[in-house]
Amino acid sequence: GEPEGPVVKTAIPGPRSLAMLSEMKTIQISDAVQLFADYSKSIGNYLFDVDGNILLDVYTQISSVPLGYNHPELLDVLQDKENIRTFINRPALGVFPGENYPQRVYNSLLRVAPKGHTEVTTMACGSCSNENAYKAIFVWYRRKQRGDAAYTPEEETSCIMNQSPGASDLTLMSFKGAFHGRTFGTLITTHTKPVHKLDIPTMDWPIGTFPRYKYPLEEFVRENEEEDRRCLAEVEELFERYNKRGKTVAGVVIEPIQSEGGDHHASPAFFQQLQRIAKKNGAALLIDEVQTGGGTTGEFWCHDHFNLDHPVDIVTYSKKMLVGGYFSLPEFRPREGYRIFNTWMGEPSKVILLEKVIDVIKRDKLIENVKVTGDILLNGIKDLGQRYPNLVKNVRGRGTFCAFDCDSMAKRDQLVDQLKVEGVQTGGAGPVAVRLRPSLVFQPHHAAIFLDRLQKALNKM
Amino acid sequence: GEPEGPVVKTAIPGPRSLAMLSEMKTIQISDAVQLFADYSKSIGNYLFDVDGNILLDVYTQISSVPLGYNHPELLDVLQDKENIRTFINRPALGVFPGENYPQRVYNSLLRVAPKGHTEVTTMACGSCSNENAYKAIFVWYRRKQRGDAAYTPEEETSCIMNQSPGASDLTLMSFKGAFHGRTFGTLITTHTKPVHKLDIPTMDWPIGTFPRYKYPLEEFVRENEEEDRRCLAEVEELFERYNKRGKTVAGVVIEPIQSEGGDHHASPAFFQQLQRIAKKNGAALLIDEVQTGGGTTGEFWCHDHFNLDHPVDIVTYSKKMLVGGYFSLPEFRPREGYRIFNTWMGEPSKVILLEKVIDVIKRDKLIENVKVTGDILLNGIKDLGQRYPNLVKNVRGRGTFCAFDCDSMAKRDQLVDQLKVEGVQTGGAGPVAVRLRPSLVFQPHHAAIFLDRLQKALNKM
Ligand code: FES
Repeated sequence: GEPEGPVVKTAIPGPRSLAMLSEMKTIQISDAVQLFADYSKSIGNYLFDVDGNILLDVYTQISSVPLGYNHPELLDVLQDKENIRTFINRPALGVFPGENYPQRVYNSLLRVAPKGHTEVTTMACGSCSNENAYKAIFVWYRRKQRGDAAYTPEEETSCIMNQSPGASDLTLMSFKGAFHGRTFGTLITTHTKPVHKLDIPTMDWPIGTFPRYKYPLEEFVRENEEEDRRCLAEVEELFERYNKRGKTVAGVVIEPIQSEGGDHHASPAFFQQLQRIAKKNGAALLIDEVQTGGGTTGEFWCHDHFNLDHPVDIVTYSKKMLVGGYFSLPEFRPREGYRIFNTWMGEPSKVILLEKVIDVIKRDKLIENVKVTGDILLNGIKDLGQRYPNLVKNVRGRGTFCAFDCDSMAKRDQLVDQLKVEGVQTGGAGPVAVRLRPSLVFQPHHAAIFLDRLQKALNKM
Repeated sequence: GEPEGPVVKTAIPGPRSLAMLSEMKTIQISDAVQLFADYSKSIGNYLFDVDGNILLDVYTQISSVPLGYNHPELLDVLQDKENIRTFINRPALGVFPGENYPQRVYNSLLRVAPKGHTEVTTMACGSCSNENAYKAIFVWYRRKQRGDAAYTPEEETSCIMNQSPGASDLTLMSFKGAFHGRTFGTLITTHTKPVHKLDIPTMDWPIGTFPRYKYPLEEFVRENEEEDRRCLAEVEELFERYNKRGKTVAGVVIEPIQSEGGDHHASPAFFQQLQRIAKKNGAALLIDEVQTGGGTTGEFWCHDHFNLDHPVDIVTYSKKMLVGGYFSLPEFRPREGYRIFNTWMGEPSKVILLEKVIDVIKRDKLIENVKVTGDILLNGIKDLGQRYPNLVKNVRGRGTFCAFDCDSMAKRDQLVDQLKVEGVQTGGAGPVAVRLRPSLVFQPHHAAIFLDRLQKALNKM
């Protein structure tokens, strides 16, 4: 079982972590390494490191651990002899899927399909999920334009040499502060830190403004509605401007909460109106649920909070879903094989694990747990915000997907460090935010420990 | 153990495969599916399908199975309780690596590092391996230009909005017929089939010509040398033209054997000269060993055949290596963390499996086996080429990485189908080639079975 609370015995990173780090530095750049973990001992919400420190983990490998560490039922999956074979025989899923693979997809991904969705494509990480969703949008858009006409010989020969008309001039709209990945296509739509983008060639695609709200929301209703209007007007203007320039906007990609960019939220009304504007322009709406999906916001998909008029055209997932990919409406299915394809097309061993994860989420009512725990967490942080107004500002969240701002980057970094001294692993997001990304088994008593340690850390600042 | 030979009981796909396929078609596009496999029963070089057919597999999941199916020592890896925990606790490797991870990398990837290499970065598939290698090249090139100067504020703010000077106008040279992946960046450098590229926005980067040789090589020495000269002159000309236009060529990416494009080989002299031209132009040379790496050509890395003057700047790998990534010379290490980064940065469970794979390759002298078996295979196919000159042309290969051409795409497709009827799973490549990609445990007696079945298939055409 879990320990009763965090235990901190050394500085973090401790001497053993530092020794391994100096080894690792001879092999590769290791500037982002915070500690070396002991994944044999780590359990539930507690991350053990190689120096004997035990941290309450509310960051969970950049939000990618659904049931905590070493969940007994996931360990059981690997006791099954048949399952083990799936872990060592990775197929080219698009060509030679294994026995009953469609059934496995029904029992896992389709069991939690977003509203209105019956189709799913599997990929291996958040980047290839988005990259391929973008491709599906461009293929869909050109098919709408082309109608039933076949590709012309000129299209076929020109595209091979990166020329029009085969290569299109279509674009995809993204938002300032967005993060969708770091491969070339997703990087065109990522707008977080310079270090992510400097020196890399890119394309001129439209970039809108994601709302920046004033908190607490209930005190700034009018200002925030005005912010929505301003951002939506800009979206309309960008459609017009890019379409007119022949850089037709085929779709819009957006996070339901801008996560890496600093946990920026937008209202359901904003997303409803954004979907209407996209539809009016014949463009697809892609909601990137790579970080928000899987139950952590108190709904299985964060956009379930938004009451949209229509199902979302494409929803991408990864991280807590263990496998990557996208749900898409039937019209986004390409007509030809190999339009959306790669060697592995995801991984069945991850689907087997996901099947069990979803069983546990349903049986243990973990989404309900996220709602209850999230309320305690958010209210507790808001209370601390009253006492430490410069260190805990703009408190916001859905479920346990919570964040707050410090009044400077230096203070934020210092607080994240101090929290580690108190035995809590959090993470920064954007310039000044502290983000919480606990797993779905983070319960009220874990929230109480977190709030206690946060208060101690704030006291020492 | 393995069966004594292939067994074909039904048409392929058989009735059970077809039933699962019709289920799968309700979920996603499934046009590339050939059969549903039984990965519990599959063993060594034999792929079992759900209809009781047993195929000698010389295609191995698009060249991605190093030791055949269900290798006993890989099954053993998953008997170890500590190892099992690595399979269910996937870390964010760049931030919280597990205990002794550097040691694991030494025992696996660095044990087989290409000549002159001591650094390695892990990724998860061939596409992100190449995408990140491209980024490393652009970052390296701009650093050479910038010297010790810091980024200017203008670079920092412009890159976020996809504008110069922060976003560079650098380019990467690729070759007609090349395949490096299907994500946006790699797709810019992929030039195989229209279906891979149609409708997707791309960039104008230089595209050279990869040699197309006449076979048998010993009869066309002069012609093929002339072909090398022609292609290399074009590379020089492209450097000049793009550099002059301000689309400076920062690097060249090339496969040691163009694999998806149809198994096109180029001479060691071509690669030696290409490296010299890249160096003269201050550009990096990236050799993409995603399909050729891991021992299948009779050397661990295919470019070991080329006797190059210098170590290759960057070598990418994936597929048979189970994990993806790249080896790079020290000057390609970015100065700042997070330049090359993503959530998972590969996967430790794959590294554990790779460690065992490399143990077995060394202990069982599998590269030696590839050489011996490859000779038998290539000579046997050449013999058949004498008897069936229209169906077996341009026989070529290194190790067991062999191919031959039919005189039309229709004939090629028919032969691949007929081979399945005879109990052999091969694959097409490019418009007219049949490619062989057996695992490293493919032995002389398997080659004999293959040649026997190939002859039977040719007889029936
Ligand atoms: S791009 Fe997703 S796993 Fe490689």
